[in-house]
Amino acid sequence: MRSVSIVGIGQSPVGELWNQSARQIAYRAIAAAMAEASVERADALFLGNMLSGNLLDQEHLATLVADFCGLRGIEAAKIEAACASGGAALRIGAMAVASGFHDVVIVAGVEKMTDTVGKDTTAGLATAADAEYEALHGVSFVGLNALLMQRYMYEYDVPLDAFAGFSINAHRNGAHNPNAMFQEAINRDDYLKAPLIATPINMMDSSPVCDGAAALVLAPTERAHEFTRGHHRGAVQILASASANDTIAVHDRRDPLFLQAAEISSEKAYRQAGVTTDDIDLFELHDAFTIMSALSLEACGFARRGEGWRMAQEDQIGIHGRLPISTMGGLKSRGHPVGATGVYQIVELAQQLTGAAGANQVANPRIGMAQNIGGSGATIVTHILGV
Amino acid sequence: MRSVSIVGIGQSPVGELWNQSARQIAYRAIAAAMAEASVERADALFLGNMLSGNLLDQEHLATLVADFCGLRGIEAAKIEAACASGGAALRIGAMAVASGFHDVVIVAGVEKMTDTVGKDTTAGLATAADAEYEALHGVSFVGLNALLMQRYMYEYDVPLDAFAGFSINAHRNGAHNPNAMFQEAINRDDYLKAPLIATPINMMDSSPVCDGAAALVLAPTERAHEFTRGHHRGAVQILASASANDTIAVHDRRDPLFLQAAEISSEKAYRQAGVTTDDIDLFELHDAFTIMSALSLEACGFARRGEGWRMAQEDQIGIHGRLPISTMGGLKSRGHPVGATGVYQIVELAQQLTGAAGANQVANPRIGMAQNIGGSGATIVTHILGV
Repeated sequence: MRSVSIVGIGQSPVGELWNQSARQIAYRAIAAAMAEASVERADALFLGNMLSGNLLDQEHLATLVADFCGLRGIEAAKIEAACASGGAALRIGAMAVASGFHDVVIVAGVEKMTDTVGKDTTAGLATAADAEYEALHGVSFVGLNALLMQRYMYEYDVPLDAFAGFSINAHRNGAHNPNAMFQEAINRDDYLKAPLIATPINMMDSSPVCDGAAALVLAPTERAHEFTRGHHRGAVQILASASANDTIAVHDRRDPLFLQAAEISSEKAYRQAGVTTDDIDLFELHDAFTIMSALSLEACGFARRGEGWRMAQEDQIGIHGRLPISTMGGLKSRGHPVGATGVYQIVELAQQLTGAAGANQVANPRIGMAQNIGGSGATIVTHILGV
Repeated sequence: MRSVSIVGIGQSPVGELWNQSARQIAYRAIAAAMAEASVERADALFLGNMLSGNLLDQEHLATLVADFCGLRGIEAAKIEAACASGGAALRIGAMAVASGFHDVVIVAGVEKMTDTVGKDTTAGLATAADAEYEALHGVSFVGLNALLMQRYMYEYDVPLDAFAGFSINAHRNGAHNPNAMFQEAINRDDYLKAPLIATPINMMDSSPVCDGAAALVLAPTERAHEFTRGHHRGAVQILASASANDTIAVHDRRDPLFLQAAEISSEKAYRQAGVTTDDIDLFELHDAFTIMSALSLEACGFARRGEGWRMAQEDQIGIHGRLPISTMGGLKSRGHPVGATGVYQIVELAQQLTGAAGANQVANPRIGMAQNIGGSGATIVTHILGV
């Protein structure tokens, strides 16, 4: 199996991009990544996207985007795994290069969730749940996460403001990310005064509905230097890639407060990369809701069960902390254009590992991890990157 | 790169399966393929599907189906490339095994297009076209194909009944396929009397709206014997896998009557397999409309431009003809559950290559080709299999 490296990255700003369609947002990210890698062609485009069929009445999206980017005669496929679509697309791009099927592969993620005519974005997001056994009963994603957070607070006797640190950290970092949707810091008081969306989840616990796209150029590691000559940033190697699923419905799990798929995929990834949790210098986790940050830290072995929130309260997660997370704002502050999120995480990890994270730069990171979650933990993709 | 073989196949009957949901239809095909390969687990499920988000309000479909099949803790992703989703999923499954990412991979395709509440299947299918430049103007897929057929008849001075042979052949073969939606032969008179849908396309030129699922179990060729011990059918090797795209909109092509992506992907496939058109013993092509059969035969080098229809008229395409096509009924008679079609083609090719095609058995085939088309030729996936 060939080793695979990331030789170019690109992203669009995240926000309510009302004057841009999905293809235009995707083009912006893909063109930037291709320019950085000095390539005008690629062998394939694997595009992470969740909602184009439901919200935009547009399928065949990968070929549509490839066509708009001038990439004809190549392979193009859309990869869908709910909010883990971006991470799933990266895995498939990595397989394509590792196998020798392709040499130069573009992995991108795009989502257009705002300004959709006659569509309901909340109902669209609920298509990540079981339509017949969950969504039919009116469950939304914020509702499912609220049930998990309530249960967590009860089981572990945790106060409501225990989760504030995750949101404060995300906004502090997002304030220095020019591509973030919310570029302003918040304090504990802002968190406590935020309006409730679904008790106990408030506005500051929840990631926003938004648009955005991110892109990567992949190549065999042995050829990476050919593509990175033109830019100051070096290549970043994919040390591990792992994916695991769980029951789609939360009510089918033995223990709803443990992300079993996160444990399986992170343990596989540690094994592949030959590392332990101590070796991870930063962790781009899937903070769609603050409760997901706590559960992810616990399932991946960074905190004991019921204690993930303490890492935030004790500020171990800041840029200079023991384990920096959401270093460019995370899903909460950079934003969560769902099918693109997994690719944004990798773009930001690559920025960190190549010393290009600006004001948010973690000191000399060598190994970073990203984890992309679909549904309420039903699909979990973990990547470990290194320089 | 490891060689990849198909060690188990399964399919559901195709039809208006009103008493079964998508997950149940998929389960039926997957369980059959797993039973044939004597496996109770797999490392991954790659699921071809086009319309679940648009018609069923269900995304995250691969994890949903995996969960329903009892496959937890594994990788699951949905692959979408319009009507080429099944072929695209097979490519990705092959990459996963070839690269060494996985050993045992399930590739399936499922589509549920009937009995959808409050949804418009024709509009759903139009999401394979460009929503902003084609569908917005009211274009449907039968409409696009009608324009192509009309142009073909004009350019090459071909009479309306030139296409009858494709439909007659498909129905003749479908009559002996217990999984086909239409199990009855038709004659030239039936074709000529069929009601028009969109001039010049009549009911017998067009594949039906239907439900169905098909599945494959893939494994490294060197380990194939471990899985095929239990069944009479031997393994089938994937000799070539290639994909190419074109402009999504037909109006953007220099020549709308030439499927450039079919030429690119078939030539790549011939090269990979080390064969020429003369070596292909049968061809499961994408006869969603009879015009597509003619265009595919021409672009893949089996007929000169403007003469693909002659192969049907001279009955070179029958089971005992020069190049048997649609041997189990094709999209026209077996049916076209869009995201599953590419996998049905491979299942049927495997049946033929292992002598399990019953009354429709082609005499001693060694090498077969399948071609799966998304949109009006915008994504074209070609596979060559051998025994």
